[in-house]
Amino acid sequence: MSLLVIGTVAFDAIETPFGKTDKIVGGAATYASLAASYFYKKTKIVAVVGNDFPAENIQILKNRGIDVEGLQIKEGEKSFFWSGKYHNDMNSRDTLATELNVLANFDPVIPASYQDCSYLMLGNLTPQVQQTVIKRLHKRPKLIVMDTMNFWMDIALPDLLETIKMVDVLAINDAEARQLSGEYSLVKAAHKILTMGPKYLIIKKGEHGALLFFEDKIFAAPALPLADVFDPTGAGDCFAGGFIGYLAQVGTINFNNMKNAIIFGSALASLCVEKFGTERISNLSDEEIANRVQQFVKLSSFTL
Amino acid sequence: MSLLVIGTVAFDAIETPFGKTDKIVGGAATYASLAASYFYKKTKIVAVVGNDFPAENIQILKNRGIDVEGLQIKEGEKSFFWSGKYHNDMNSRDTLATELNVLANFDPVIPASYQDCSYLMLGNLTPQVQQTVIKRLHKRPKLIVMDTMNFWMDIALPDLLETIKMVDVLAINDAEARQLSGEYSLVKAAHKILTMGPKYLIIKKGEHGALLFFEDKIFAAPALPLADVFDPTGAGDCFAGGFIGYLAQVGTINFNNMKNAIIFGSALASLCVEKFGTERISNLSDEEIANRVQQFVKLSSFTL
Repeated sequence: MSLLVIGTVAFDAIETPFGKTDKIVGGAATYASLAASYFYKKTKIVAVVGNDFPAENIQILKNRGIDVEGLQIKEGEKSFFWSGKYHNDMNSRDTLATELNVLANFDPVIPASYQDCSYLMLGNLTPQVQQTVIKRLHKRPKLIVMDTMNFWMDIALPDLLETIKMVDVLAINDAEARQLSGEYSLVKAAHKILTMGPKYLIIKKGEHGALLFFEDKIFAAPALPLADVFDPTGAGDCFAGGFIGYLAQVGTINFNNMKNAIIFGSALASLCVEKFGTERISNLSDEEIANRVQQFVKLSSFTL
Repeated sequence: MSLLVIGTVAFDAIETPFGKTDKIVGGAATYASLAASYFYKKTKIVAVVGNDFPAENIQILKNRGIDVEGLQIKEGEKSFFWSGKYHNDMNSRDTLATELNVLANFDPVIPASYQDCSYLMLGNLTPQVQQTVIKRLHKRPKLIVMDTMNFWMDIALPDLLETIKMVDVLAINDAEARQLSGEYSLVKAAHKILTMGPKYLIIKKGEHGALLFFEDKIFAAPALPLADVFDPTGAGDCFAGGFIGYLAQVGTINFNNMKNAIIFGSALASLCVEKFGTERISNLSDEEIANRVQQFVKLSSFTL
């Protein structure tokens, strides 16, 4: 049994009101696998980089015990690069550069040793590539979680709808849920999306937390109000990685465990944004995670 | 001991995607006192209307046992009138008309029988008038809750700051908390505002719920996701009324009871928006309220 994360491994250059970075390690699969690694030891990655990607960046993943056999390194090609600048409110950002490079022709290769995959996290990527990964696994994983974004709804909706049909959990933000369903009410949007394939829908609302929809049940998780958000990059991916990592750890998929998984995912996301890039998420102690989870318990509990 | 609500009693004309009303009963004090009346029997109102205000509108308050001795009826004057049109998303609205009328020279008179006030709800009004009410009470109430809005921050900030100093709980929305404090982070905003006088700060976030700040503690209450919001008018006032009504009922002011009060206030707000105007909030059963509160418990509870 293993947890497989597919997504980007990339260079990011980030500017926030608190500072600016050169090219640092980034990408959805980087953040998600790091977050998952705190809950599940057998976390593996499928991604692609160019040979400009330094060994020490890959070492960050290896240090957390993440299996990188599925990380292709393309000779003579350049890694995916994203550069963005966050506004003062940290809720909006301008993309300064997106260079697809090696990602343009990404053909995800699944190593034979990865065929024991039970938990599959499809990080934000072309829906076609996400689908290819599902098809290349000989046995359907016990749980497939899919992240996506409005960009694919705009340019690849038929592919997206086909891929959505194949997954158990879809994680999107509120604007994307409205776009995908054509409904403004998130309750109505969720009911429509739950007829498209997924059994569970997570609607991420950034600083307002997240909603989990399953059958006629709803769970509302708060986000932890923070005094300082240094760098929001990767928060959503850490959320997804913590979420599926926790579920892989407990091993039983039900609504109660999903609720807890959302709290653990939210805790990892809230830690991630306290420093630039992957700095905080690369080296957390179990105690730091436990304390943060307890903050979420305190934040939302009441006794009538 | 009694609970005193001050605010507007008015005519509203509302248009939403679900329909349109003629002049119906509205106003912050109307909604807040109705909501409070479900928790605390001795709820009294201080407000002003013109003699165009029909007796049957006042009867809506009387039916809930609300003491209207402090409701002045001005001969030959017209009641405050507000007309608004909600957009399809129900989160934004255009004000079509605001006629101050009798409100322009509102001098709040406190009947002698109201001097037993222990719980004071200052509904959204000129901060000067809110302050006058506090000063005209011979004994400082046990708890003063104040609602206000950005409008007063724009045109009457010194008065507002003076009034804020005198209250225990301030309830404003997230944009207003940012404006009042000059801080984007709600944690920093809250810390600043808690040095301005109030011991407790409630930040209302509409469909995203509410945050309660007290010392270094934070409580996050969700809003109930609803399939249909018929008319958002009065939701914030029902929240405030349910909040202070619950606290008056339990009688002890502490962080735990404040948390519960926010849940009860949120429950009343979520019921209010299910029908036009005061229709839903005029005639609720205890069972409906208890069931709605249980929905909030289910919505936000998890067991690690």
